[in-house]
Amino acid sequence: MEKLIAQYENIRRRMKAYLFANNLANWDSTTEAPKGCFDNRSVQMGVLNEEYYKLQTGEETVAVIDALFARREELNPILKHEIAERKEALDKIKKVPMNEYVDFMTLLGSSEHVWAQAKKASDWKMFLPLFEKILAFQKKYVKYVETKNLKGYDVLLDEFEKGYTTKEYDKFFEVLKTDLVPFVKKVLTKDLQIDDSFNKQLFPAEKQKQFMLHLQTVMNFDKDHGLMKESEHPFTTNFGSCTDVRFTNHYYENLFASAIFSAIHEMGHATYEMQVDPALDQTLSGGGGSMALHESQSRFYENILGRSKEFWRANLPALRKVFPKQLKGVSLETFYRFINRSQASLIRTEADELTYPIHVMIRYDLERALFNDEIAPADLPKAWNQKVKEYLGLDVPNDKEGVLQDVHWAWGYFGYFPTYALGSAYAAQIFAKMNSEFKVLKSLESGSTKQINEWLKDRLHKYGSTKYPKELFKGVAGANFDPKYYLKYLVKKYSKIYGLKP
Amino acid sequence: MEKLIAQYENIRRRMKAYLFANNLANWDSTTEAPKGCFDNRSVQMGVLNEEYYKLQTGEETVAVIDALFARREELNPILKHEIAERKEALDKIKKVPMNEYVDFMTLLGSSEHVWAQAKKASDWKMFLPLFEKILAFQKKYVKYVETKNLKGYDVLLDEFEKGYTTKEYDKFFEVLKTDLVPFVKKVLTKDLQIDDSFNKQLFPAEKQKQFMLHLQTVMNFDKDHGLMKESEHPFTTNFGSCTDVRFTNHYYENLFASAIFSAIHEMGHATYEMQVDPALDQTLSGGGGSMALHESQSRFYENILGRSKEFWRANLPALRKVFPKQLKGVSLETFYRFINRSQASLIRTEADELTYPIHVMIRYDLERALFNDEIAPADLPKAWNQKVKEYLGLDVPNDKEGVLQDVHWAWGYFGYFPTYALGSAYAAQIFAKMNSEFKVLKSLESGSTKQINEWLKDRLHKYGSTKYPKELFKGVAGANFDPKYYLKYLVKKYSKIYGLKP
Repeated sequence: MEKLIAQYENIRRRMKAYLFANNLANWDSTTEAPKGCFDNRSVQMGVLNEEYYKLQTGEETVAVIDALFARREELNPILKHEIAERKEALDKIKKVPMNEYVDFMTLLGSSEHVWAQAKKASDWKMFLPLFEKILAFQKKYVKYVETKNLKGYDVLLDEFEKGYTTKEYDKFFEVLKTDLVPFVKKVLTKDLQIDDSFNKQLFPAEKQKQFMLHLQTVMNFDKDHGLMKESEHPFTTNFGSCTDVRFTNHYYENLFASAIFSAIHEMGHATYEMQVDPALDQTLSGGGGSMALHESQSRFYENILGRSKEFWRANLPALRKVFPKQLKGVSLETFYRFINRSQASLIRTEADELTYPIHVMIRYDLERALFNDEIAPADLPKAWNQKVKEYLGLDVPNDKEGVLQDVHWAWGYFGYFPTYALGSAYAAQIFAKMNSEFKVLKSLESGSTKQINEWLKDRLHKYGSTKYPKELFKGVAGANFDPKYYLKYLVKKYSKIYGLKP
Repeated sequence: MEKLIAQYENIRRRMKAYLFANNLANWDSTTEAPKGCFDNRSVQMGVLNEEYYKLQTGEETVAVIDALFARREELNPILKHEIAERKEALDKIKKVPMNEYVDFMTLLGSSEHVWAQAKKASDWKMFLPLFEKILAFQKKYVKYVETKNLKGYDVLLDEFEKGYTTKEYDKFFEVLKTDLVPFVKKVLTKDLQIDDSFNKQLFPAEKQKQFMLHLQTVMNFDKDHGLMKESEHPFTTNFGSCTDVRFTNHYYENLFASAIFSAIHEMGHATYEMQVDPALDQTLSGGGGSMALHESQSRFYENILGRSKEFWRANLPALRKVFPKQLKGVSLETFYRFINRSQASLIRTEADELTYPIHVMIRYDLERALFNDEIAPADLPKAWNQKVKEYLGLDVPNDKEGVLQDVHWAWGYFGYFPTYALGSAYAAQIFAKMNSEFKVLKSLESGSTKQINEWLKDRLHKYGSTKYPKELFKGVAGANFDPKYYLKYLVKKYSKIYGLKP
């Protein structure tokens, strides 16, 4: 047994080194690599990926994991869980014919580019042939790996959020459809009177960056173990260790609030990664517990904390110090309303806290229908536009602002979108639990998220991915997931802002 | 044969990917990685290095290289050269007992740290035990790999600059000793009258960076295939391709000239790397041709071009625009004298163009004596201080500013220093050849190094490391190396500045 574990640890050590190299190269590519280097770089990345793949699926790896899995009851709980996850992934890989998998990867190699071209031309038909191939592979993949309990779309949903399938998501989105949508419609008829002329001024990027340093202090971002940089789209990454967690931001001088909420969002992700038990650094059980759990943390910090009045009671003075001219005469109340204004909009990534889950719901409905053969890919734009009209009351003027807006399908990601909404809903339930122990928003008036960070560390972050998401969620929320907390949170907050009776 | 070559190409492709990953990680470590990440990072780097080493020395690699070497006459000249170099390196590795090699690497793992502590304490005795071990290994190593023609110190000299041994270096340093040293002594007795009060002002780092953009334009630095960043010590690196060449700089607000000449120096290295034939990107024959050739390019740009009057006739106006207050009333003549002032000094890296080779000569003498058992390591500080007194007329006040100033020995690098001086001498001879074809310094008054870059590209840069240094040098200088060009260049330049009869 000891020998087996040592063998596994040796393989894992090498896997982590490849992960490190790959993540670092991606970080470099998105933040500073010169634009002329990518032809050569893609060759190097291809080789590293290949070596990593060979290591993951090599004979020795398969044999060791099979052997450890057979004797899993003798393992400590962390290793037992890790081996079970590896075993499941390997068993899946074994079921997919290698040549088909390679073909699919090759297809994905150029798909983002094709999607970007189609989006630019705002023409679904340009992307359609590729989309059909990607979908066809995924349907075939699902057939290869399906089990008695997991079939069709459920296979993919479960891959992105273990334990969540249409059974859970149907219930969740049903609550949104029947209870949230009518409320949102009521909100959208009201016009929030705000003088937002201050938002029409320019906010120099250099000054914005200055405020980011303040936000880092508020959120206790640990600069000894992370850093902030710029990229086209904000994101957070690490290199297989809680000791090096990095995020990026992007500065729009005519949209100053964008970088603020991106930073809080990304630092939510980063706080999760940084607070994982350092003892997990040498395992594959570090990092966040799942897609939705990660998103629950980023959205908790961004929306529940970052868009609260208490947060800005503490931090508006600092922002005003950086932008004295631009924010002259802007009261806390005005600022609070400004950052919480709800509007029907076409683009998911720009949607406000209230309408955001509706965008996700639309994608979930469409993906589900695609996998049930209820819609043909050629009809997707039409179906998309109908749903946007139905739920948000908007006419979609073109594919660019409609069905082509997100890159996910070009990456082959079906079943990913729902985790975005689930994460927000997780956050609301965790918030309720946290509030039963101390006054969460009140604590922000201290000018620091310290108490909140620590609470989350003890109940969620430190565990990394040593357990399945449902278990991790129960550990932090004290109960199984229930969408009513999310609904309640949104209705309460927005009723107050919009002067509606809840 | 085709199969053999394909096999080799596959191994090489993987080697290049590891090189890429290692270089990128080093780049990240020195430019931005958060300080708390290094414990974990060293684990990942260790694994990647191990994988790389295994690949380089693995059975398959050895067999393929042996087979190709046996049939080398059938190979194209580039591959033939590459295989010969690989074969020589592998044959050496085979002669060294693995456990001794591993012990040595482990020793070096902590040696920089020990050296840094000793330097901080200015105490040679703190470093001595480790230095003795490093030297003992190198002496043993030399015994393992020596051949009829290459023995002792020559083995190491030849590793750093193929074809150069004590035979060549003795001749070179003899010229410096008999002809340059007396001239330098004459120069050092003269006092160059300059009002350098402008140098006592502060030059804000942000403004200095602005001027770097100007220098990039002058030198035609290709921003699509490279970038500039900051680090503690300036350096240039690439990732196994001419399409991604990066350098760093460091800004001292009270020493504004430092970053200017560092930038020109590093862009000399970078120009070399960027101008290598892109077809060599997939080989191991890209990059610069040797240590001294690389240094010849950086010093050519830095000293011969960058410290010429013509360069500043073209570029002082731009510098003045960035620093109008600080440079008010500073004439071209004053500026030129200021950047070419020669002074005896203790620290090699801060030495001026004229006294620099004397610092190198001292190290060469001492290394030679160490390998000939003429000095014991314990007596090194004494020997060092005597030489500094003899050649530069200075008393060394402590080990920190003496024998402990450079890190090279802690890295196990003996035989490396001489390439620094050789590079400067190469540069002078290349300059003479270039001048026989066009007016080199005059061409700088166009505000661009374009003509010079192209001349060097055609005669040297594009060949990468497809030939041995002596052949590459002859290709660009039109003759074998002769130290008299260097002597002539220095004597002429400094006689004029100091009003001496040459």
